[in-house]
Amino acid sequence: MSERRPPRSAAHELERYDGLFASRTRVMRSSAMRDLMAVTVRPEVISLAGGLPDTSTFDPALFARLLGEMPTAQALQYGPSEGLLGVRQAITRVMAAEDMDVDPEHVIVTTGGQQAIDLVTKTLVDPGDVVIAEAPTYPGAVPTFCSYEAEVIQIEMDADGMSIDALEETLARLDREGRRPKFIYTIPTFQNPAGVTMSLERRRRLVALARERELIVLEDNPYGLLRYEGDPLPTLRSLEVPADSTEDNDFVIYAGTMSKILSPGVRVGWLVAPRPLLAKLILGKQASDLCSSTLTQHFVAGYFASADWRAYIDELRDVYHRRRDVILDALAEHLPAAASWTRPHGGLFIWVTLPDFINTTDLLARALAENVAFVPGEAAFADGRGQHSMRLNFSSEADDDIREGVRRIGKIVAEQVSMYEKLTGRPGATAAGRAATAVHGGAGGAGVERGAAENTPTGDALPANVLELPRRGATEGRRSRGA
Amino acid sequence: MSERRPPRSAAHELERYDGLFASRTRVMRSSAMRDLMAVTVRPEVISLAGGLPDTSTFDPALFARLLGEMPTAQALQYGPSEGLLGVRQAITRVMAAEDMDVDPEHVIVTTGGQQAIDLVTKTLVDPGDVVIAEAPTYPGAVPTFCSYEAEVIQIEMDADGMSIDALEETLARLDREGRRPKFIYTIPTFQNPAGVTMSLERRRRLVALARERELIVLEDNPYGLLRYEGDPLPTLRSLEVPADSTEDNDFVIYAGTMSKILSPGVRVGWLVAPRPLLAKLILGKQASDLCSSTLTQHFVAGYFASADWRAYIDELRDVYHRRRDVILDALAEHLPAAASWTRPHGGLFIWVTLPDFINTTDLLARALAENVAFVPGEAAFADGRGQHSMRLNFSSEADDDIREGVRRIGKIVAEQVSMYEKLTGRPGATAAGRAATAVHGGAGGAGVERGAAENTPTGDALPANVLELPRRGATEGRRSRGA
Repeated sequence: MSERRPPRSAAHELERYDGLFASRTRVMRSSAMRDLMAVTVRPEVISLAGGLPDTSTFDPALFARLLGEMPTAQALQYGPSEGLLGVRQAITRVMAAEDMDVDPEHVIVTTGGQQAIDLVTKTLVDPGDVVIAEAPTYPGAVPTFCSYEAEVIQIEMDADGMSIDALEETLARLDREGRRPKFIYTIPTFQNPAGVTMSLERRRRLVALARERELIVLEDNPYGLLRYEGDPLPTLRSLEVPADSTEDNDFVIYAGTMSKILSPGVRVGWLVAPRPLLAKLILGKQASDLCSSTLTQHFVAGYFASADWRAYIDELRDVYHRRRDVILDALAEHLPAAASWTRPHGGLFIWVTLPDFINTTDLLARALAENVAFVPGEAAFADGRGQHSMRLNFSSEADDDIREGVRRIGKIVAEQVSMYEKLTGRPGATAAGRAATAVHGGAGGAGVERGAAENTPTGDALPANVLELPRRGATEGRRSRGA
Repeated sequence: MSERRPPRSAAHELERYDGLFASRTRVMRSSAMRDLMAVTVRPEVISLAGGLPDTSTFDPALFARLLGEMPTAQALQYGPSEGLLGVRQAITRVMAAEDMDVDPEHVIVTTGGQQAIDLVTKTLVDPGDVVIAEAPTYPGAVPTFCSYEAEVIQIEMDADGMSIDALEETLARLDREGRRPKFIYTIPTFQNPAGVTMSLERRRRLVALARERELIVLEDNPYGLLRYEGDPLPTLRSLEVPADSTEDNDFVIYAGTMSKILSPGVRVGWLVAPRPLLAKLILGKQASDLCSSTLTQHFVAGYFASADWRAYIDELRDVYHRRRDVILDALAEHLPAAASWTRPHGGLFIWVTLPDFINTTDLLARALAENVAFVPGEAAFADGRGQHSMRLNFSSEADDDIREGVRRIGKIVAEQVSMYEKLTGRPGATAAGRAATAVHGGAGGAGVERGAAENTPTGDALPANVLELPRRGATEGRRSRGA
């Protein structure tokens, strides 16, 4: 490799290309957070930031057997844009486990769940169009909506998920403005990042509203099978069309993924959509990446054909259930009284809200100095809200690391509280210091803190890698610290 | 599965969603061709339509060994958006084989070469922006450019590739209109679909023009290492910055792929871009699919670390070289004198131009009835040109099938010529019947027929699956017919 000249200044370089960038790149710009988060690739950092499943739980012998059975020439070749039939059939089995009856012809295989969101947005959204999402919403969806220059309106949540009253008010306001949302994006079950689950009554109301107003709902359900307590609730899709009905779904587009029940590394997600949308979605997929990996699709098809996939989900459930309890105990032990958090019945995430004099984006810099990472709440909003909240993941680190990570976060929060008390003379560590909008769930229920709407928006959206990517060690040779 | 009601009429269904679709879907609409082409999945069809490499040449024992060596937990986990370091290092070795000296830090791994084109367009193009491409251009790029609502201006080619004179005229015209193209898309070596290669003199002129006018050039080079005769030419990238220079590339973005030298099924392509563009491209990738498959990236990294990848390319070269000669002989034997075609020195494609009373989109319906398929020329244009031309692939079918496929095409072309002569009383099978704009290469050189610009544009762009996807048999269990 020849010696290279020193890097030119970033400012000079950017100027040179400035006129060339598409306008979407202005809203896609990264915040300082991206650089900060790069620090979390250090192996000594305990990351409660990612959305990583613990893939060290997967049996290496099974992995080797499945790979050994793959047909060489077919696995290396292109595949159909809509995905291999064997994979689409496997997907219908996964959906049947949540009481959904789907024709494989209505399934499109996507390059992970992320592409499912991207394709729906690509198919439906022109610049300035409204997309409705939850507040907070999946942090990886924010850059996608922004990349199509959508106007994202986020609806408040409580322990029972998205407020349908608030949704109706928003729809009425949009009506008065002569506007109509292109779709409503929701993760009704074990929501990312809030950890709450939409109640049955609200699910019914949302589906009725979609039918009545002919509104598309994108139901994103990556975690539905990862329930640790309570009874399963029907998906929006199955509420629109019961399993024994002869009707097609008209308004619910359903997105799923293998990422949390098998592996994110295979990049196999999916969409199930009404027929007229399917054709457009497939055209969009062809323009994006032609088809998803045939090799990993053969792996997935082989896995569902020959492995006990339900037993593996049971295993994951056991591990994550225990870690959820570990993190809840650790939060109770280490966070001050002024903090509050949700209590998820499943999934991978907890949403923590701190006193409103603490900015979690600033806090992250201090946390990284203590070798612990989380996702600052701002990443879950398109408008800069969420500054006092953070998302914590409990699926990817070992029990002891979860405890130690929360202990460190507790320590720096306590320092902030104490500094605030010294500077202001006011008590910072009591409930009085909390954001006034905080709402908690009832006994045993999952609560959620709403982001404080009055904060100044920063306009910065976090890049998706902050949220879903592992520390380098997890993919490039570091010994897994999975339990 | 419950019984479903009969499908509603497509017209009724589409109407219901009509107001919801993004405006890009209007230009992304499929033509009747898509349905026609679905017929090519029948195993009895000889497809000269795809862009498929012959993956049956890959050693199954090596495939099994590489898969057996993969680290389970890491291969199943998320990876960095920019790709695994091991893969980026392998990519620099592939590029070094074409005399390019690249820092792995400047490489982004993409989900196939298709995503490389998508990300560049996403980063640079607003609706109405100009993208310059070759005439004809890669048929899979047309839907991508259309999905960002680019105005695609295609520059004529001859045996020496894109006409730089014509490019300069177009740039001057755009100047007068106060417009500037966002980028110039070119496949300089063994162009898809034309099969021609840009001369060294034109390469130099194009790079000089890009520097002088500060224009981005997207150099797409999937086939550069698949040369069957003649000496290698430097890539545009290496002409902008020689391998021993300490400069960075400023204007050439380079796109490559493992699809034609290893496997399309792994979906591993790449981009090498100037630093200020890299950051935006990575943000775009995160919003699209977070990261490419970690599993297939581990496979690729393992392959380059432990297999003789250059020997495999030599093997592919031998097979494809022979098949190129087979198809050229078959064309000479079976096509009438009024047809002309290019003579590629490498790559996978030949461009055939027929008398201008033959429409190749219509011809395809007849060809499918004879169980043979090709890509109609229209797919390679954004404006409906190319109606008398077709793209033929010679890499994926066995020698005898290539001969038989060309024989069948020759037969139906002869029928068309004879019908024309009967109806008009004019000679259809001589050079006089050709499009007046046809240009041929010199002795031993590769020539190209230009699409007839005067034809009525249809506005229909072919979906990418027509062009890159295999018949179902190739991926779903049909015995490979590879030589």
